[in-house]
Amino acid sequence: MNYNPLTSELLETLRQIVGERNVVLDEAMRETYSHDETSKDEYAHMSDVVIFPQSTDAVARVVRLANEAHIPITPRGAGSGLSGGAIPVYGGIVLSLEKMNKVREIDYDNLTMTVEAGIVTNEINSLIKEKGLFYAGYPMSLETCTLGGNIAENAGGGKAIKYGVTSRYILGLEFVTPRGEIVWLGGKLAKDVTGYDLVHLIIGSEGTLGIVTAAIIRLIALPTAKTDLLALFKTPEAAISCVPKILAKDLTPTSIEFMDRQSFAASCTYLNEGLSYAECGAMLLIEMDGRDASTVEREAEAVGDLCTELGAIEVYVADNRTTQDRLWAIRRNIAEALKVYSPVQSLEDIVVPPASIPLVLPELDRISRKFGIAIPCYGHAGDGNLHATLVKDPSMSFEAWQKVEPEALLALYDATSHLGGKISGEHGIGLKRKSYMYRFMSPVEQMLIKSIKQAWDPNLIMNPGKMLDFETQE
Amino acid sequence: MNYNPLTSELLETLRQIVGERNVVLDEAMRETYSHDETSKDEYAHMSDVVIFPQSTDAVARVVRLANEAHIPITPRGAGSGLSGGAIPVYGGIVLSLEKMNKVREIDYDNLTMTVEAGIVTNEINSLIKEKGLFYAGYPMSLETCTLGGNIAENAGGGKAIKYGVTSRYILGLEFVTPRGEIVWLGGKLAKDVTGYDLVHLIIGSEGTLGIVTAAIIRLIALPTAKTDLLALFKTPEAAISCVPKILAKDLTPTSIEFMDRQSFAASCTYLNEGLSYAECGAMLLIEMDGRDASTVEREAEAVGDLCTELGAIEVYVADNRTTQDRLWAIRRNIAEALKVYSPVQSLEDIVVPPASIPLVLPELDRISRKFGIAIPCYGHAGDGNLHATLVKDPSMSFEAWQKVEPEALLALYDATSHLGGKISGEHGIGLKRKSYMYRFMSPVEQMLIKSIKQAWDPNLIMNPGKMLDFETQE
Repeated sequence: MNYNPLTSELLETLRQIVGERNVVLDEAMRETYSHDETSKDEYAHMSDVVIFPQSTDAVARVVRLANEAHIPITPRGAGSGLSGGAIPVYGGIVLSLEKMNKVREIDYDNLTMTVEAGIVTNEINSLIKEKGLFYAGYPMSLETCTLGGNIAENAGGGKAIKYGVTSRYILGLEFVTPRGEIVWLGGKLAKDVTGYDLVHLIIGSEGTLGIVTAAIIRLIALPTAKTDLLALFKTPEAAISCVPKILAKDLTPTSIEFMDRQSFAASCTYLNEGLSYAECGAMLLIEMDGRDASTVEREAEAVGDLCTELGAIEVYVADNRTTQDRLWAIRRNIAEALKVYSPVQSLEDIVVPPASIPLVLPELDRISRKFGIAIPCYGHAGDGNLHATLVKDPSMSFEAWQKVEPEALLALYDATSHLGGKISGEHGIGLKRKSYMYRFMSPVEQMLIKSIKQAWDPNLIMNPGKMLDFETQE
Repeated sequence: MNYNPLTSELLETLRQIVGERNVVLDEAMRETYSHDETSKDEYAHMSDVVIFPQSTDAVARVVRLANEAHIPITPRGAGSGLSGGAIPVYGGIVLSLEKMNKVREIDYDNLTMTVEAGIVTNEINSLIKEKGLFYAGYPMSLETCTLGGNIAENAGGGKAIKYGVTSRYILGLEFVTPRGEIVWLGGKLAKDVTGYDLVHLIIGSEGTLGIVTAAIIRLIALPTAKTDLLALFKTPEAAISCVPKILAKDLTPTSIEFMDRQSFAASCTYLNEGLSYAECGAMLLIEMDGRDASTVEREAEAVGDLCTELGAIEVYVADNRTTQDRLWAIRRNIAEALKVYSPVQSLEDIVVPPASIPLVLPELDRISRKFGIAIPCYGHAGDGNLHATLVKDPSMSFEAWQKVEPEALLALYDATSHLGGKISGEHGIGLKRKSYMYRFMSPVEQMLIKSIKQAWDPNLIMNPGKMLDFETQE
């Protein structure tokens, strides 16, 4: 696909549409918007311009302009993505939704909220908490990420076992098509079969089908009781083999997070956390929540007992906010801590059927030994979604890493596929995993996806270079 | 769109693919397969042939043949649909999935089941009940309908408040594209963002995008405790205005079903049910279920008290299976009972935001008076999904009905749209509501849907004449 350059005439029109100060050409700014949370050295690309529209109408006008002029547009939320989804691979326009962050409506009668795509996810909950309400989309980066990004990737996170992922809470979308038309899809409805389910087609499509500018989200009753357990095990195998057994017990945990030693140790060091874990080879962080404190307490006790029975060497119970925050900080800061150890790494997002979870670790071990690289592993074990992280040893040359990384990734993806799994549970394909899709998705499924993309975006201007090689001439 | 006639050569090839006895030309049989549960007089169409393939490979070969020869295919489950979705509008082939009804796997470790599309929905639960498992898709016709039809329409039903609709329980699909390719989409995964969410695009697409031949469904723990309440109110308004108030209480009922007097009276007569309802103008049938009997009992009591407080003249409690079955029989047989009263009718499926539920009844009253037709109303009030039923008075001529029905429907749809609702919550658009879509779906949304259809099925052979006018040359 050949895109056109951004001419000064087009820039002038962009200024007219979004306003002078919302069109940024400054190199340092463009550099900031050239990458997300994937390794900068490997994936960053510069755009020609970064723009900050403040209305849906402005977004639509920009898209119409870009579509007519064949200029690529890369929509962007907070840039906290982990698949390179917001990287402007072909230059052109980075369209940041940051300034579209208004709450348009809180509808207490229908338990919905209409918010713009640029709202920070955690802000949603801070606005409704005192009314006893809760938005259950819960990515681990919720303090920085934005709802639009969550929708683009169909973000999962730490509460998916009980509450499901982002898609369960999106009732309607305000959407700008690649031709620059504005359309509302869905509505404040408990069910709706009027036409195809375009809302769920768009969720998780990584900005390749158009731009979500606002969403109607579903609110539920805020769980008022919560207990967290930190169960320490001698070996990763002992910890992970508990997971399907807990799931089988019908106790509905909110989270079952796995952390191997390298992961939690890095995070504890990073946080100066004095937790004693001398003999511990892996931990499970398990949360139970609900509206009835005694039920939560009883179920947490049952889970704790089960862990002990299955070999946990210690089970810490956190039933107050301070201790809970402390435990979750360990889990939440692993990615950051491993980045401090080595910024060059490949944070993976494989997902396997629940019963196959224990079978992943021996594979990681095998791949780690075969390629001589460390693969710390943590993540949402209760969903079968593990963030195995291939880490470049600081002493390894970048060239050596560039050679070994794709081979080790292929081995990991092969093993995952063999276990009935897929290459991404919640981070997306984006730029980072695109070149592996041909190996792990059937040609028919690729064709079905490509034909939708071609039909909606014939000029391929929306977030090119992501998910599949839509731009390659065949 | 011009389709080709089914030649004797093509018939011979069909016989080779699916076997002689699975190709039916007999007129009486074709008549049986010319309609679903919509009014026969208004919607029935004859096919050229009805076939019963017994394998996915056979389905794919038939589709390839039809695609090359430009013969329309209408996939069909049990024919229990309420939108004319399985009616062969353009003749050609009716492809019944009835003989593809095998259970391919029950995976107790992953809590999934892989079943063919033709399995009767209720059979799923009878197979797993004794293992303490439950498939929560629950259309009211579950004793006759098939899973494939439930997927095609994204069936809802009586438990959607708590458990959601069919789509929540479909993890993967075996799918035959309109070009006759076989593809598996999704898998036994708790979450998956590898590519577009084609599974949810196909669910609810009414057989217009291809044929679902099998599905991986998610099983959950069987609720072991259940209490039903039948709350009698003086007026429909008193009953319906309770619904948002119960929903706001965070008691998670499984069902809140509404029945007006004409609906339950017809059903009681039909069933010879001796329930005393002299002063009652409307009923709510409310179910609470769960795994903990004392919680269910406590919550049911709270809902019962709330109904009394809000004006219920009587609240019957059914905590044993026999009484529960008796109450649900009243609800379940309304459609059949109203059909006995008058087979010519329009069973509607409007859905509105929860808070707008009480606003629907005055509109029905207004439309009923304006057009001089009875509109009994019942349905899944807890989902905002009401089956208002426009009934031809037996004394009215068919011609008069044909004049008044579309006008009354338009008035109903206008009112629904005005309340933020849509024209179908669970029955689908099909043949019956297609001509109204242009009025209630934006041109942009229609274009997005049409472009997917065109991309996947360029010869428009899959279930033509449904949902939108895909066949009309523009």
